[in-house]
Amino acid sequence: MRPVNIGLLGLGTVGGGTVTVLTRNASEITRRAGRAIQITHAAAQFYDPQRISGLDQIKHIGSDPFAVVNDPDVDIVIELIGGYSPARELVLAAIENGKHVVTANKALIARHGNDIFAAAQAKGVTVAFEAAVAGGIPIIKALREGLAANRIEWIAGIINGTGNFILTAMRDQQRPFAEALAEAQALGYAEADPTFDIEGIDAAHKLTILGSLAFGIPLQFDKTFTEGISKLHAQDVHFAAELGYRIKHLGIARRTAEGIEMRVHPTLIPHRRLIANVDGVMNAVLIKGDAVGPTLYYGAGAGALPTASAVIADVVDIVRALTANPHHRVPHLAFQPGELSDTPVLNIDQIETAYYLRLFALDQPGVMAQIAGIFGEEGISLEAIQQKEPADGDTHVPLIMLTHRVREARMNQAIRRIEALDAVSGAVVRIRMETLAG
Amino acid sequence: MRPVNIGLLGLGTVGGGTVTVLTRNASEITRRAGRAIQITHAAAQFYDPQRISGLDQIKHIGSDPFAVVNDPDVDIVIELIGGYSPARELVLAAIENGKHVVTANKALIARHGNDIFAAAQAKGVTVAFEAAVAGGIPIIKALREGLAANRIEWIAGIINGTGNFILTAMRDQQRPFAEALAEAQALGYAEADPTFDIEGIDAAHKLTILGSLAFGIPLQFDKTFTEGISKLHAQDVHFAAELGYRIKHLGIARRTAEGIEMRVHPTLIPHRRLIANVDGVMNAVLIKGDAVGPTLYYGAGAGALPTASAVIADVVDIVRALTANPHHRVPHLAFQPGELSDTPVLNIDQIETAYYLRLFALDQPGVMAQIAGIFGEEGISLEAIQQKEPADGDTHVPLIMLTHRVREARMNQAIRRIEALDAVSGAVVRIRMETLAG
Repeated sequence: MRPVNIGLLGLGTVGGGTVTVLTRNASEITRRAGRAIQITHAAAQFYDPQRISGLDQIKHIGSDPFAVVNDPDVDIVIELIGGYSPARELVLAAIENGKHVVTANKALIARHGNDIFAAAQAKGVTVAFEAAVAGGIPIIKALREGLAANRIEWIAGIINGTGNFILTAMRDQQRPFAEALAEAQALGYAEADPTFDIEGIDAAHKLTILGSLAFGIPLQFDKTFTEGISKLHAQDVHFAAELGYRIKHLGIARRTAEGIEMRVHPTLIPHRRLIANVDGVMNAVLIKGDAVGPTLYYGAGAGALPTASAVIADVVDIVRALTANPHHRVPHLAFQPGELSDTPVLNIDQIETAYYLRLFALDQPGVMAQIAGIFGEEGISLEAIQQKEPADGDTHVPLIMLTHRVREARMNQAIRRIEALDAVSGAVVRIRMETLAG
Repeated sequence: MRPVNIGLLGLGTVGGGTVTVLTRNASEITRRAGRAIQITHAAAQFYDPQRISGLDQIKHIGSDPFAVVNDPDVDIVIELIGGYSPARELVLAAIENGKHVVTANKALIARHGNDIFAAAQAKGVTVAFEAAVAGGIPIIKALREGLAANRIEWIAGIINGTGNFILTAMRDQQRPFAEALAEAQALGYAEADPTFDIEGIDAAHKLTILGSLAFGIPLQFDKTFTEGISKLHAQDVHFAAELGYRIKHLGIARRTAEGIEMRVHPTLIPHRRLIANVDGVMNAVLIKGDAVGPTLYYGAGAGALPTASAVIADVVDIVRALTANPHHRVPHLAFQPGELSDTPVLNIDQIETAYYLRLFALDQPGVMAQIAGIFGEEGISLEAIQQKEPADGDTHVPLIMLTHRVREARMNQAIRRIEALDAVSGAVVRIRMETLAG
């Protein structure tokens, strides 16, 4: 049987890693796939030949990606350019030409996946995106196939390594956010413009994809709530640790009676949870299914070789299934098209969670009673309340509160009322809290 | 398209769970598979109708399993009887009749898998066994498909929940083995005859399967070294903890230049490792691939619903692929048949690992020098050596040693010489140690 021909778009970090792994492990991969897999045509604007081993195996390297997707000899296109344009046009052209597509482009899938999958379904080709979420961890496959028997209850994931590295540094070395970010940039774990990572946008792209696979809803990136880590105080990381919690930047997708919660934000989790101990640039995703219970998947969320591992796993899947009836392939969003659900994605005000709160209040009798009175009126139960020592000369003391679960709209209302008190100075710091117990 | 018909053998714990999940989540499962899936024929010697919901959905329940595998309307047979006979005869008959098979039977696959897969390949049907290893965790799928791009370097797994429950109780509550076992039995986590679990035979069945998938070698259960936990002293659990280690009953499969290590035994691991903190009946498998790096998979390793989750995931896979060309399905042992490797499985003497050692020696000058001298002559480096306080009136003191990595044959030799010293009383306790760092 003739080899399968790959058209590769992009020879950056992941593209280079893909060439390296495909050539280095060619014999293992062929033994598994049943056919040889070769890159016949690649396109890149710039690349460093010294840093990519196996480049000499590629028949033709040019600079025009459209030449690759229009090349009649290419069976599968791997899109590793990133961004929206021309990635979207290239992917749609590849599909139009009857080619399968493998991509690592979480932003493209999150925003344009619905259209891309519809085009692929109509044409009878596959678009695979394991590499778009959590690097080398086969999380898409686990969710879409391994847990196919379950009604998924919730997902909670550390799915951005940059943010996790920063939070680990803030805790381990008790550093403020800006210093930890600078270290991440120096080590190459954060871009010069780190906005997508630290503001949670990258995590929100990935969570959107996980949520659709879990709950069988169309991709709705614009409905995913995003709150970054740039406003986190080292102080809160410290107080949380004293109370027995770690702060992680979690992506949470949860099914409730009213609809689906889709939210990315800093979250306190009990330090005993395995996921609370996932540090540095590693990723981890917790999935709770109604039959299997809680399952955790952990590994490298980024990097040339780990991401290449996921890209090539998708290629092997496609190669193995190449003669299968398109109607019987694994559906893109796990659920057969036409079977997607219209369950609504909830606004952040409608979610239910617990909270860590910190505020500055006058160190006077009656103040705590005032604050507790507001919580009581809003129907919010307190799990703990602590008063910290004031700094020398301060008239105000830090008050820390842990609440039980309550709807965010009520918490917003309580916070507004507390901030309005004369005895309270400044804003109330609020960090959401999840037990992730079951 | 007509529904897919399942023939179910066994209505015990997992069989009952399978019926329950298949009926309860029928709509989600159908939405994912693209076809309805129904159990048309089941056979069991005895079952409790009160404890299994959805039983009324099964068209015919009898007591003859051969009637099920010979039933012309059945497409897929699910074997949940366990054991070797008649499970083996039933599976082979189902294959002969052109039916696909899904099983949870780790013992059967470990011992007879080579023949079973050959028969299935010749007939063009699939035998799937996700439920045979680590319960609901989709580990077989991860290894065989998700990590297909990697050269697997090693696997380390907590793959028997009974043993892990006992070790957790020994540490958390400082109990001796016999008490912890009794508690496990009282809670239903261990059988009346717990031999398969505590002596590591069950874990060895599962490790055999994982090793074959990872390294592309035929299943060779008889070459897997097994050492149980029944001889573990509460003392060693305690000393290990003082030194910063946990003791887990690990299954380890490792590729070396000389061949494949396949071994199940108590193992010290640094307490900071995520896997060291997997407690109770949960399972976890660490897999290191050369591209992806270390990945961890965690979840419920046993139980009616978690195991049913894995059984049904396999069924959905088969349903999705039902029209695929048999030559293009995912190969049973991950590697295409005819592409299996003849890399040898090493004897336990040939493995390399580090050790925790405990012995009793006379509390006299010169004794430590004697012992250290033997290690030096055998080329064994010591990482740590500690002398503990003797119990009142004892002439001998406990000595604890941590060594660096060395070949087991040399350690055996060193131990023989140390045990022969006049100053040493009794046997040397030896527990292997792994850093699982990379």
